[in-house]
Amino acid sequence: MRLALDAMGSDRAPAVEVEGAVGALSDHPDLGIIFVGDRPAIEAELAKHPGVPRDRYEIVHTTQVIDPGEPPAQAFRRKPHSSIVVGIKLLKKGIVDAFLSAGSTGAVMAGSVLTLRPLPGVDRPAVGAAIPTESGRCFLIDAGANVDTRPQHLVQFAHLGTIYAQDLMNLENPRVGLLNIGEEPEKGNEQSVETHQLLSTAPRLNFIGNVEGRDVVRGACDVLVCDGFVGNVLLKFYESMGEFFSRTIRRVFEEAAAQTELLERVYARLDWTTTGGALLLGVNGSVVICHGGSPPNAIRNAVGLAVRAAERGVAAHIAGRLDRLAEPQEAE
Amino acid sequence: MRLALDAMGSDRAPAVEVEGAVGALSDHPDLGIIFVGDRPAIEAELAKHPGVPRDRYEIVHTTQVIDPGEPPAQAFRRKPHSSIVVGIKLLKKGIVDAFLSAGSTGAVMAGSVLTLRPLPGVDRPAVGAAIPTESGRCFLIDAGANVDTRPQHLVQFAHLGTIYAQDLMNLENPRVGLLNIGEEPEKGNEQSVETHQLLSTAPRLNFIGNVEGRDVVRGACDVLVCDGFVGNVLLKFYESMGEFFSRTIRRVFEEAAAQTELLERVYARLDWTTTGGALLLGVNGSVVICHGGSPPNAIRNAVGLAVRAAERGVAAHIAGRLDRLAEPQEAE
Repeated sequence: MRLALDAMGSDRAPAVEVEGAVGALSDHPDLGIIFVGDRPAIEAELAKHPGVPRDRYEIVHTTQVIDPGEPPAQAFRRKPHSSIVVGIKLLKKGIVDAFLSAGSTGAVMAGSVLTLRPLPGVDRPAVGAAIPTESGRCFLIDAGANVDTRPQHLVQFAHLGTIYAQDLMNLENPRVGLLNIGEEPEKGNEQSVETHQLLSTAPRLNFIGNVEGRDVVRGACDVLVCDGFVGNVLLKFYESMGEFFSRTIRRVFEEAAAQTELLERVYARLDWTTTGGALLLGVNGSVVICHGGSPPNAIRNAVGLAVRAAERGVAAHIAGRLDRLAEPQEAE
Repeated sequence: MRLALDAMGSDRAPAVEVEGAVGALSDHPDLGIIFVGDRPAIEAELAKHPGVPRDRYEIVHTTQVIDPGEPPAQAFRRKPHSSIVVGIKLLKKGIVDAFLSAGSTGAVMAGSVLTLRPLPGVDRPAVGAAIPTESGRCFLIDAGANVDTRPQHLVQFAHLGTIYAQDLMNLENPRVGLLNIGEEPEKGNEQSVETHQLLSTAPRLNFIGNVEGRDVVRGACDVLVCDGFVGNVLLKFYESMGEFFSRTIRRVFEEAAAQTELLERVYARLDWTTTGGALLLGVNGSVVICHGGSPPNAIRNAVGLAVRAAERGVAAHIAGRLDRLAEPQEAE
């Protein structure tokens, strides 16, 4: 298993990427990592971790960097020597099994679509993220790759999410919910009303109906389908809550001694960095996207996600599922 | 100060309404409450609270109930003897200063628009809710009254929210943020890009730009403007978090003794029932909407909100502000 890691993506690149990768290498004994980025900077960071065996990694030197503000598709075309472009091409050529970046989400998306191509039957690849709930995890899709989506895109997200949940959450028949502002089929905006109709009759989906905001962390569904606008707002809001509650608790507890260790354990259960990254679903390859503000721990765990996605063959399973959907329904 | 309380609205009506009202009467010595609903049922509940002076309340008997599932405008027209219709008419006639209901949000909205009428300059009244943040509170508008809104509606929400924050949050120059999926003006969906442009040039608004999901509880803005779909999802999600974190903490802490009192204090800071209700902004009158699942404490605190809104004259302030906006800008 080999993985290409964009070493230049995060706000504190390449220090965070290298530190996270070193952790991931010890987590996965069979993993090799290709660092893609500025060689001297990467080597300087690697020198801080002298225990890493030299045969576990390589460096591919790049000279360009895509800024978060650049128009994604244009940046991808104009900067062939950037770490994102080079990394995705390594995946395209089969030199690595997965690619991971904490750089511009838009550029990674655009590059994946332009280079790897969407899988047949996928109009819009989507980003999903598994968030902790009372009873396990809920896979939110789309978490921000697409806005102004049409109902048929949301149905595709339901399929992408179902396969993710089967492959990476070990759920046989994941319950798919549609994020909405009421339980009844006729509730919501134009998009959600039409999407509810389509999902209700879609084959090979375990659609359980609308799911309201308050039911998400109660574990109402395993796959939560939504437009990327509301999905991104919800995911980022959720990610800020751990810190918010933690601070609120600390303020209340400050007079009470010796709570620190217990609080650490609470925080650990809710810490988004334990997942670390989000898989880009619907393109022909395993691509993981991380926040620009990722700490090393997030990178380390995101590498774990990339490894599992590549091992389980999520992309191939999606291709197979969409292929079967294209078959005449009478064949079932 | 007199308030009409729909006694038939919540899931456990009228027990919850009566218990909440009894608490609110002791909170506000100058308050009188008119219970609107089934007289025998209300009297039976009041009998459980023998300490309430008889001159503090009245009962207006009604015989019809609007179900949550009924098409709102139609229900309002067809059920003139329902508690929602009768209550709103008491407000319209000036018999009470505010109306409060935990019944069908749609019917209260429709009834308020049809009976009280929107204020001049308001195309769509909106519901707002103040949520706790690190540094105070953030007023989310719209929290669910409108979906498929246009950018000019969101600008009106910004004005409605600004006046609310001035009158009820005691902020002189509230910071208005636009809920979006990136900080840059060009980020987001078609609606948010256009709304950003309009807000940037709108007079008499302290617009600070886009606010991402993760920045809300960090206290990035005082008034958070959004479409009612994403606002409703976010608000309900937030309301479920207190319980979720509380349970998670309990699970971690279960072996540690004597934490209960501290946890109660954490939970109290985040408990949505301390606000209890949401003010319907933009109609000519003070109307407060509560969740159907409200406990007595939520009703009690929602009454407090209605009292403050009526005392401060929020509706009149909104009318004045929109009036001034209609004046030629040169007059400034």
